[in-house]
Amino acid sequence: MPNTANDLTSLKTKLLEIQHLRDASALLSWDQETYMPSGGGQARADQIALLQTLAHDKFVSSDIETLLAPHIDPTTGLAHDETTALDDASKALLRETWRDFSRAKKLPSEFVTRLERECSLAQQVWAEARQENNFAKFLPKLQTIIELKHEEVGYLGYKDSPYNTLLDTYEPGATVAQLKPLFTTLREGLVSLLDQIQQAPTPPDNRILYQAYDNDHQMEFGKEVLTKMGYDFTRGRLDVSAHPFTTSFHPTDVRVTTRVFENDFQSCLFSCIHEGGHGLYEQGLSSEHHGTPLGEALSLGIHESQSRLWENSVGRSRAFWEHFFPVLKERFPDQLNSVTVDTFYSAINTVKPSLIRVEADEVTYNLHVMVRFEIELDVIEKRVSVKDLPELWRTKMKEYLGVVPEKESEGVLQDVHWSFGAFGYFPTYTLGNLYAAMLFKKAGEDLPSLNSDIAQGNLIPLKEWLNDRIHRHGRHYTSEKLIKNATGQTLSAEPFLQSLRTKMEEVYGITLTNS
Amino acid sequence: MPNTANDLTSLKTKLLEIQHLRDASALLSWDQETYMPSGGGQARADQIALLQTLAHDKFVSSDIETLLAPHIDPTTGLAHDETTALDDASKALLRETWRDFSRAKKLPSEFVTRLERECSLAQQVWAEARQENNFAKFLPKLQTIIELKHEEVGYLGYKDSPYNTLLDTYEPGATVAQLKPLFTTLREGLVSLLDQIQQAPTPPDNRILYQAYDNDHQMEFGKEVLTKMGYDFTRGRLDVSAHPFTTSFHPTDVRVTTRVFENDFQSCLFSCIHEGGHGLYEQGLSSEHHGTPLGEALSLGIHESQSRLWENSVGRSRAFWEHFFPVLKERFPDQLNSVTVDTFYSAINTVKPSLIRVEADEVTYNLHVMVRFEIELDVIEKRVSVKDLPELWRTKMKEYLGVVPEKESEGVLQDVHWSFGAFGYFPTYTLGNLYAAMLFKKAGEDLPSLNSDIAQGNLIPLKEWLNDRIHRHGRHYTSEKLIKNATGQTLSAEPFLQSLRTKMEEVYGITLTNS
Repeated sequence: MPNTANDLTSLKTKLLEIQHLRDASALLSWDQETYMPSGGGQARADQIALLQTLAHDKFVSSDIETLLAPHIDPTTGLAHDETTALDDASKALLRETWRDFSRAKKLPSEFVTRLERECSLAQQVWAEARQENNFAKFLPKLQTIIELKHEEVGYLGYKDSPYNTLLDTYEPGATVAQLKPLFTTLREGLVSLLDQIQQAPTPPDNRILYQAYDNDHQMEFGKEVLTKMGYDFTRGRLDVSAHPFTTSFHPTDVRVTTRVFENDFQSCLFSCIHEGGHGLYEQGLSSEHHGTPLGEALSLGIHESQSRLWENSVGRSRAFWEHFFPVLKERFPDQLNSVTVDTFYSAINTVKPSLIRVEADEVTYNLHVMVRFEIELDVIEKRVSVKDLPELWRTKMKEYLGVVPEKESEGVLQDVHWSFGAFGYFPTYTLGNLYAAMLFKKAGEDLPSLNSDIAQGNLIPLKEWLNDRIHRHGRHYTSEKLIKNATGQTLSAEPFLQSLRTKMEEVYGITLTNS
Repeated sequence: MPNTANDLTSLKTKLLEIQHLRDASALLSWDQETYMPSGGGQARADQIALLQTLAHDKFVSSDIETLLAPHIDPTTGLAHDETTALDDASKALLRETWRDFSRAKKLPSEFVTRLERECSLAQQVWAEARQENNFAKFLPKLQTIIELKHEEVGYLGYKDSPYNTLLDTYEPGATVAQLKPLFTTLREGLVSLLDQIQQAPTPPDNRILYQAYDNDHQMEFGKEVLTKMGYDFTRGRLDVSAHPFTTSFHPTDVRVTTRVFENDFQSCLFSCIHEGGHGLYEQGLSSEHHGTPLGEALSLGIHESQSRLWENSVGRSRAFWEHFFPVLKERFPDQLNSVTVDTFYSAINTVKPSLIRVEADEVTYNLHVMVRFEIELDVIEKRVSVKDLPELWRTKMKEYLGVVPEKESEGVLQDVHWSFGAFGYFPTYTLGNLYAAMLFKKAGEDLPSLNSDIAQGNLIPLKEWLNDRIHRHGRHYTSEKLIKNATGQTLSAEPFLQSLRTKMEEVYGITLTNS
């Protein structure tokens, strides 16, 4: 056997070098979305493409294989039993690095290049098609992308459903067999909840949110809330971009963005809180393990659990506004002096079925995801023809949300994901919501003063609980194990549905039943 | 012979790839100086170091050598005579690429790493020593750096003086034999000029420049002037940093920074104009040749000629303020309503010997450079001991400027350059000033309406003249040839001295003689 201690050091050094290239590429992307002058796009695309190619080539190189292979049993993908000298963390590092390596290695570089090129083209065509409200224009590109995803599954192999392989890219370990019953329970619960809410006699009035709110003051308030959340501005920034996002170049440099509209109070603040949740996860990862899977976020679902926990479980809670509403009033006296905290709390929790996912409330949001999940499962399992997607979209929207888009730009063309081949991505949004509710419930049990802390503007105990239970572990555990360790429970929709019922009874002044 | 056309394409492709790495590294540095959170420094240093190492390794690789060598006569460093199929531009590309390659190749990578590490350490020690006003603390590091520079000259070889090799890094073709008489003429002219100015009976009063000027309004005015200069904001940005600088990632993305002090009007504006001059050069380089020497700035001296031409020949001219002073008054009525354009013009051209180079006026600036040039020449030619530099500094300052620093932090410790090994850099500042005067004089001859254009705020004819004469050529010609082509003259101090005499007679109301 080689000297295992030395070998992992070499491996980590190589991985860190690859990570530096990815981090540099991420900064170039951040700059592109925030400060890059409009003329700089083509040169930037070339720079990013080069950095990504270098990182990819270095990762799938024989160097990495030579350093990894001796430790790995290729049939299980786990560290050899006989390498007992390694601690659990090192074994996890090997397992996860091998997972990434073997996936990357299975994809011919010719295919990767072709896929990237087609996705880049498809994204441009999608943007035009959405603009022109013309699905037919996007159709051939979408068909190409779907064929490429099938080709990708061909290289990677699959078990039970080709969709499992795509899902696994974003949410390792998740399967159709697991999601289908879970999502059915969720969907039925949400449809019933929505139905009851829509019959409430006195729905809240949220027009106060659409007054004129000065943009600079909105940004300052967002920054204040982020600071209270424990987001560390010596290791981060808040900027403005067209679509809010979080990016990290290292746990010491994690940046969030928001957007701000004068006549829509919610957009800036809840984007700040949402991205702040992502940002806390990235700031809470281990610097020591940067460059290895142990220093990386576990999955999109776990990532989204952090953003949604902060956005909804905290940012849309009664306790949060107990502290923050007086602060907000000081900034916006003209708009809010005559408003009570109860009115405000109800306004920000108004439920109203709408056509656009990213603008959806907490109850209807996951119904938008269900529409997409079911459609892409049908597509990948080849039960529907791509040309029939607009009609299928309308049917499902009608069934689950009771609204039907009149334009494809507000229907099947609204999301960018499929144009860059991200089939299997949408379910992670819902998994994030479910995990968030489970985690927030358990945090409340572990921290008896959680609610009163939040009501006093003290968000740090919650942040530290998440640091301890989620952030610091990186990819050491599977999602299933991490959530089990953190909450003692296995994944289910009930904590999420229960939290919604409790909130909606308060907001709508009605008694809700379970089905 | 290989197929030359194909070979240059391969070479250009390789060079462009290396350029992408350098461009990415430059963005990381820009971010570090502008928006990076304070905690991100260590990770950033690692990322930049990796990108630079990759770029260096790729450049000195056998790939590049294989593509270059067949075209080059190693005794002359020029393209072989028999490669007549190549056009002049291709021959220039080969000549300049070979120059860079053979220099880089001569330095052992062990030495490059050692030099970088020692410079990085020396810079930290220099910053502390300057802070503590303690030359003895910096002395051993400075000695190490000087030994390393001698070692570098050992690898690169030299003709006549080891200083020539260092100078050649920043100003290809410049030599001690050329600079010594030129600088002596200049120094004597300036000392005489300064002497006469200091005896003027009614020196201007520049206290109006040190009133309170709102920072945001200063930035807006700077931006307005940059726009008028033809600096293209769709291919550039203006930001704030501790030390103003210009950086480019491609001619379509060239960024300048400035700094702004409420009680010092000149700092923000003249930094904007100065960096704008650099920025116009970078925006005016050929996109088509990006990645090759034909798409690169020629030398530090030529670069500085662009910044100083705009800063001094234009930005401190009477004609410029004919147009801009009324605009400025509108922004700052309280500060300037009772001030005439003549008073303002005189104020911004006040001459006063001072201790700090970067704050020096147009007359004394080059005397600061003379002090440094003569000292570093003595050091590199081993005529003085490093420990005697503070005393030598005081002697020369006394002789040329008539002022003597009481603290080393305002004397020999004031500039960062030596701490990172930049011996041979200072003379390029003066060369820039001399070239600027030659170019501005010729522009006035070629463009009969130049002065009245400037007086009407129309700066575009001058920008286009510089685009044509300087910017677009990159490194196609030597400095000597470029300046000869542009002005018909060879380098001399007279146009610079003459422009100062003319201006100072106006500002000080005196008649100046030539010696």
